[in-house]
Amino acid sequence: MALKSFVEVHPDSHFPIQNLPYGVFKPGPGSPPRPGVAIGDYVVDLSEIASAGLFDGPILKNSSDCFHEPNLNKFLALGRPAWKEARSTLQKLLSSAEPALRDNANLREKSLVPLNKVELLLPIAIGDYTDFFSSMYHAKNCGTIFRGPENPIPPNWFHLPIAYHGRASSIVISGTDIIRPRGQGHPSSNSLPYFGPSLKLDYELEMAAIVGPGNELGRPVDVNEAADHIFGLVLMNDWSARDIQAWEYVPLGPFLGKSFGTTISPWIVTLEALEPFSCDAPVQDPRPLLYLAEKKSQNYDISLEVQIKPAGAKDSSVVTRSNFKHLYWTLTQQLAHHTINGCNLRPGDLLGTGTISGPEPESYGCLLELTWNGQKPLSLNGTGRKFLEDGDEVTITGYCKGNGYNVGFGACSGKIVPSLP
Amino acid sequence: MALKSFVEVHPDSHFPIQNLPYGVFKPGPGSPPRPGVAIGDYVVDLSEIASAGLFDGPILKNSSDCFHEPNLNKFLALGRPAWKEARSTLQKLLSSAEPALRDNANLREKSLVPLNKVELLLPIAIGDYTDFFSSMYHAKNCGTIFRGPENPIPPNWFHLPIAYHGRASSIVISGTDIIRPRGQGHPSSNSLPYFGPSLKLDYELEMAAIVGPGNELGRPVDVNEAADHIFGLVLMNDWSARDIQAWEYVPLGPFLGKSFGTTISPWIVTLEALEPFSCDAPVQDPRPLLYLAEKKSQNYDISLEVQIKPAGAKDSSVVTRSNFKHLYWTLTQQLAHHTINGCNLRPGDLLGTGTISGPEPESYGCLLELTWNGQKPLSLNGTGRKFLEDGDEVTITGYCKGNGYNVGFGACSGKIVPSLP
Ligand SMILES: [Ca+2]
Ligand SMILES: [Ca+2]
Ligand SMILES: [Mg+2]
Ligand SMILES: [Mg+2]
Ligand code: NI
Repeated sequence: MALKSFVEVHPDSHFPIQNLPYGVFKPGPGSPPRPGVAIGDYVVDLSEIASAGLFDGPILKNSSDCFHEPNLNKFLALGRPAWKEARSTLQKLLSSAEPALRDNANLREKSLVPLNKVELLLPIAIGDYTDFFSSMYHAKNCGTIFRGPENPIPPNWFHLPIAYHGRASSIVISGTDIIRPRGQGHPSSNSLPYFGPSLKLDYELEMAAIVGPGNELGRPVDVNEAADHIFGLVLMNDWSARDIQAWEYVPLGPFLGKSFGTTISPWIVTLEALEPFSCDAPVQDPRPLLYLAEKKSQNYDISLEVQIKPAGAKDSSVVTRSNFKHLYWTLTQQLAHHTINGCNLRPGDLLGTGTISGPEPESYGCLLELTWNGQKPLSLNGTGRKFLEDGDEVTITGYCKGNGYNVGFGACSGKIVPSLP
Repeated sequence: MALKSFVEVHPDSHFPIQNLPYGVFKPGPGSPPRPGVAIGDYVVDLSEIASAGLFDGPILKNSSDCFHEPNLNKFLALGRPAWKEARSTLQKLLSSAEPALRDNANLREKSLVPLNKVELLLPIAIGDYTDFFSSMYHAKNCGTIFRGPENPIPPNWFHLPIAYHGRASSIVISGTDIIRPRGQGHPSSNSLPYFGPSLKLDYELEMAAIVGPGNELGRPVDVNEAADHIFGLVLMNDWSARDIQAWEYVPLGPFLGKSFGTTISPWIVTLEALEPFSCDAPVQDPRPLLYLAEKKSQNYDISLEVQIKPAGAKDSSVVTRSNFKHLYWTLTQQLAHHTINGCNLRPGDLLGTGTISGPEPESYGCLLELTWNGQKPLSLNGTGRKFLEDGDEVTITGYCKGNGYNVGFGACSGKIVPSLP
């Protein structure tokens, strides 16, 4: 019999009892932030569940203070056994057959807060943010656009999951406006660079892994144990200013073309909840070096969609339909590679996948690819788009289709507002 | 009359009363970390000075709790007026004419701790670490080595202070061993990449600015106000694995070739203490865009030296003699550029200058340049060196020569220990 909650959940909800994603919220304007899990149209206040002594499993009964923190980092540091215990405690507590919460009106009142009444915050304190480049289709398209059709993919790409360090301070939660960045552009090699608002503002459809327990500096994580260091996934929009990026990135990589803002979705969907949707990762040819060769190489079947809603428009237009399963390098290979030199990860670190483009043109994960660097404008219900314009609201959604339920990520959205004068 | 302290300070000390650099220390193994300033062979425990009510100026009398923190971030956030007040309070308290501390045996005992008895820690919690590339000589040498003698400096270099995001988690304090990183190398384009310990391990002589008050996301800092966002400077060794870096860095920049460890010196020398040693920065041609054009473009005259001591050797060999004043882009231009797209800085952020090479071959700031990528080995008292070997201890020192005193940075050192098997 399918697991069912006493909390009513619409069949198309992203947050059934099979999901239970973690976030951090304020129940009201004056209240301190605390962890919660989403179910249907509610968030379960984990600080109340902890205060009521309901985390009574062997691990959490002595460490449920992690649910009185303003972020999830302490819970993440506890590792997979604690996460599994929390999940089974919460699934039991929320199930239709269990009276402890269902029949306790006072506790229900305190701990089940309507989602439309809460403020959602960044669920984690992010020490370091890394962005990978793991879609072969994206690498190929970008290489063709920037360096031409001969050997568009650099020779190292098939041997290692390329990545760069991103800016942690400017990661914001879904719903935060993005101010159009200003910077230097240099449209042709004969001209002088100019300064002004970016003329090639783009989104990047990504997901990101949230690191659980870290590793000690100098001690790499084995690729076959890497999954135990990943708590879950969020949606991510790695906003990119293509004109700034193109001029600045040689030889040290992207910097101001990215660091003005990166948006993540508020709910972390755990690897446990995603497990039923795992699928084989693409076969890798050439075979990776031993430290990247994993016993089981898995992706997840997560349908992803990007919509743009121009200022004043009634409707959004879907511009990208892609899937997490298109990624060439797996999350576990990314994490193992990241630590192979001894680099230490810490709980709450964010590992972006890179833009998730698929093989078909409609699956390209950014406007750079979709409009081929502005050469082929898109039509948004009749309005042309080369790059993002002021007032455009970009929304990423993602979900896994289960048997009679969805395991979803909610939305990751942000609106472009004009540059400073 | 020159300022003089009742604490005895040798004439060649880096830490006279004119300096008073800030750090964080533990007086004993069990004690909690607290802020201090160095003077002669002592560290002044600022938590004791605060507890004694001696920070009695208008700003700090109500906010001296920043000296009961395990790092300096709260003090840094207070800004320049508070820093100036702390400096004048401490200079007065430590001066030979002032009895308050000099004649209070009990307080002296508690607050003046011999440097050789304390453990020095990272003085700041580093949210984000950025590394610039601001020495023209270094850019030219690296470009020539990696891309050939025609146009070795990329065209963007003279228009903007190029930088990349570095890894914050692996920044360690002077004295921490550095484990030789393992990773992928790819010595020739006809061969397959291999995996193993880095064969081209290098140091990079750098300094780094510590950010004081940050800026709000979306609000750039004006270049003429940027100095108020910089608390002070430390020495930095940006350890680099050249073989890993060369194979991975196209197109997204350095990653695992850097992220295995970065060492900083424990004492932050304030811009106030450095002010007497300011000097004109190099004339910039072409003239920078308006947002980088500052009224006064200043560097500091800081003599820098790098020594290598091989395992078992009796003596160190000086391998680099350079100076901070060789930098083309100033600290204030770096900071203004970093925020021009709206990127937010936070107190405690670290901005590395990039390798500080000068024009003369003996001033090159890394082995890549000194040995021309291993083609011209150095002699360390008769022992040849292309790149760092296990057991090599690298020590960076730096100081400004005043009239009868030095304002110094102490040392930034680390020893290479063998890779994991
Ligand atoms: Ca990206
Ligand atoms: Ca460097
Ligand atoms: Mg971004
Ligand atoms: Mg480094
Ligand atoms: Ni970072």
